Amino acid sequence: MPELRKDPIVRTWVIISTERAKRPHDFVRPKSDKVSKFDPFASGNESTTPPEIMAFRPANTRPNTPGWWIRVVPNKFPALDSKLDLKRLGHGMYDSMTGFGVHEIIIETPDRDATISTLDYKQVEEIVWAYRERYNIILKDERIKYVLIFKNYGADAGASLAHSHSQIIATPTIPRRVMEEIEGSGEYYKFRERCIYCDIIQQEKMENTRIVEENEDFIAFEPYASRTPFETWVLPKTHQYDFGEISEKHVKTFAHIMKNVLLRMRLSLEDPPYNFMIHTGMPSGEGRSHYHWHVEIVPRLTKLAGFEWGSGFYINPTPPEEAAKYLKKVDISKAL
Amino acid sequence: MPELRKDPIVRTWVIISTERAKRPHDFVRPKSDKVSKFDPFASGNESTTPPEIMAFRPANTRPNTPGWWIRVVPNKFPALDSKLDLKRLGHGMYDSMTGFGVHEIIIETPDRDATISTLDYKQVEEIVWAYRERYNIILKDERIKYVLIFKNYGADAGASLAHSHSQIIATPTIPRRVMEEIEGSGEYYKFRERCIYCDIIQQEKMENTRIVEENEDFIAFEPYASRTPFETWVLPKTHQYDFGEISEKHVKTFAHIMKNVLLRMRLSLEDPPYNFMIHTGMPSGEGRSHYHWHVEIVPRLTKLAGFEWGSGFYINPTPPEEAAKYLKKVDISKAL
Repeated sequence: MPELRKDPIVRTWVIISTERAKRPHDFVRPKSDKVSKFDPFASGNESTTPPEIMAFRPANTRPNTPGWWIRVVPNKFPALDSKLDLKRLGHGMYDSMTGFGVHEIIIETPDRDATISTLDYKQVEEIVWAYRERYNIILKDERIKYVLIFKNYGADAGASLAHSHSQIIATPTIPRRVMEEIEGSGEYYKFRERCIYCDIIQQEKMENTRIVEENEDFIAFEPYASRTPFETWVLPKTHQYDFGEISEKHVKTFAHIMKNVLLRMRLSLEDPPYNFMIHTGMPSGEGRSHYHWHVEIVPRLTKLAGFEWGSGFYINPTPPEEAAKYLKKVDISKAL
Repeated sequence: MPELRKDPIVRTWVIISTERAKRPHDFVRPKSDKVSKFDPFASGNESTTPPEIMAFRPANTRPNTPGWWIRVVPNKFPALDSKLDLKRLGHGMYDSMTGFGVHEIIIETPDRDATISTLDYKQVEEIVWAYRERYNIILKDERIKYVLIFKNYGADAGASLAHSHSQIIATPTIPRRVMEEIEGSGEYYKFRERCIYCDIIQQEKMENTRIVEENEDFIAFEPYASRTPFETWVLPKTHQYDFGEISEKHVKTFAHIMKNVLLRMRLSLEDPPYNFMIHTGMPSGEGRSHYHWHVEIVPRLTKLAGFEWGSGFYINPTPPEEAAKYLKKVDISKAL
């Protein structure tokens, strides 16, 4: 049974994930970096995943058979379990919770070789629709405090299967980093009565040295204090708190910019491993005036040394202005 | 010129390290994981490092010649530069600082094949003495707000040279993670008027399910909310705020427990890559009653996925109780 445990000092939560339990001796042999060869997410292999929760498929096809173009399934080795009761428990001076939550996989295409940067815009839009739909449905459960949509691409970014997919983890607590963003932007709002993300967009447009891509509704840039080379943020250009409220028009323009940015990285950095995560407001609506949903994309080109995650102090060897210039000049037109 | 930049939202600092600048195209070819073959830290190669800052060597030997058993040199590619003036600067809505600071390497042994877990206790004590000496000397500069002592061991933990060494980075700001610990332990103190670390030691001794190693003065255990498999903390058993005040007796017992814990990991996890960092109080003395210096050791056995560092929410597949049991049962006596 998975369990959530709280660090008593800095008060972050850790999932002790017994479903995917690694016995200590599993670590003895250095694991191969190879991604598994069998593809449970390919069309025709539907029976090798847990039954689908949702799929975009023709009306005349049955669930868990081929024909789909997007398929959402429970994670076979879920970090959290939606069948558990949510209980908070004390353990001496420590705090824990039952490992209640949701862990789903969004299979982004039936094609084993495609990925967001190579799929056509229409299919990327379908992925965003699937995100939106699952996001809003999962949040109907009031025990869920946050829905994290993220993607690990490539073994070095933590993906254990090569077939293009994203993940959703919904938790009974707010993730630390999001809470910090909501608090930080709240303090700025107290001082200036403006959304800090809106101000950052203004500043980036004025300077125009870190922008990678822009369309009518979205902007992508390397943040001023990028933690890693080629860290890229994607934001709606007008103030929007909640990803779940994304409009039909914005689904299109968001899909467009995501594909383009990832294609720029693919072409110029030789298909790098990366992670992205959608940072969105909370179901409680806290900070609606000052928090602004966005995506943080982090290519995994350098090794995160202990110094960095032990201290919260990052060393980035590539100035974001140089990274932006490099990504911006990539000619993606021939790959579209 | 290196530069410190502040994230305007969560207000962490990033070092944009131009001295070790990676041009974007350096990322195009996946870098080899191999650690460089030439060993600039070996005895006889003293001229290939910047001149030594300090060394433990016989009185009849000259600086930068063989004979030393511990040698401290500036990092050849420093993340921060001690010759810069410390200046705070605005850049539109953003904040930066000149990249003032210190970056040193502690070469832990002249032997190219040894490391902390295989050196004898006496030599590990010498390493701790070098830590202590540099720590206290660097802090005499009032512009320095924090001295970080850490070690990256193995390419997967970010080490670029195999020869056993630790690093010191001294910064004009307090690292985020340490600040969070000081604040978190401060809130506990307000509530209970006790040091939370002292209470954790009590709880660990009472439960006795996560302890890995203990001696007269120090205890090593897997923390209750371990973020990764085999995360291990080492703490002095009585309340101590500042690593720089470590006593002669504690240097011995600290060296002893560090070697033993790392040896347990080496023998049972096949010489795993790891990071450790000494978390200590601040020169300002803030939180003296409730902060407690300690070491956090993190073997790098799993890949940190984007979910984890994007959200601050960790998934750990190995319960700390199992990890402790596994490390505890290792028979280190035959390797001593």
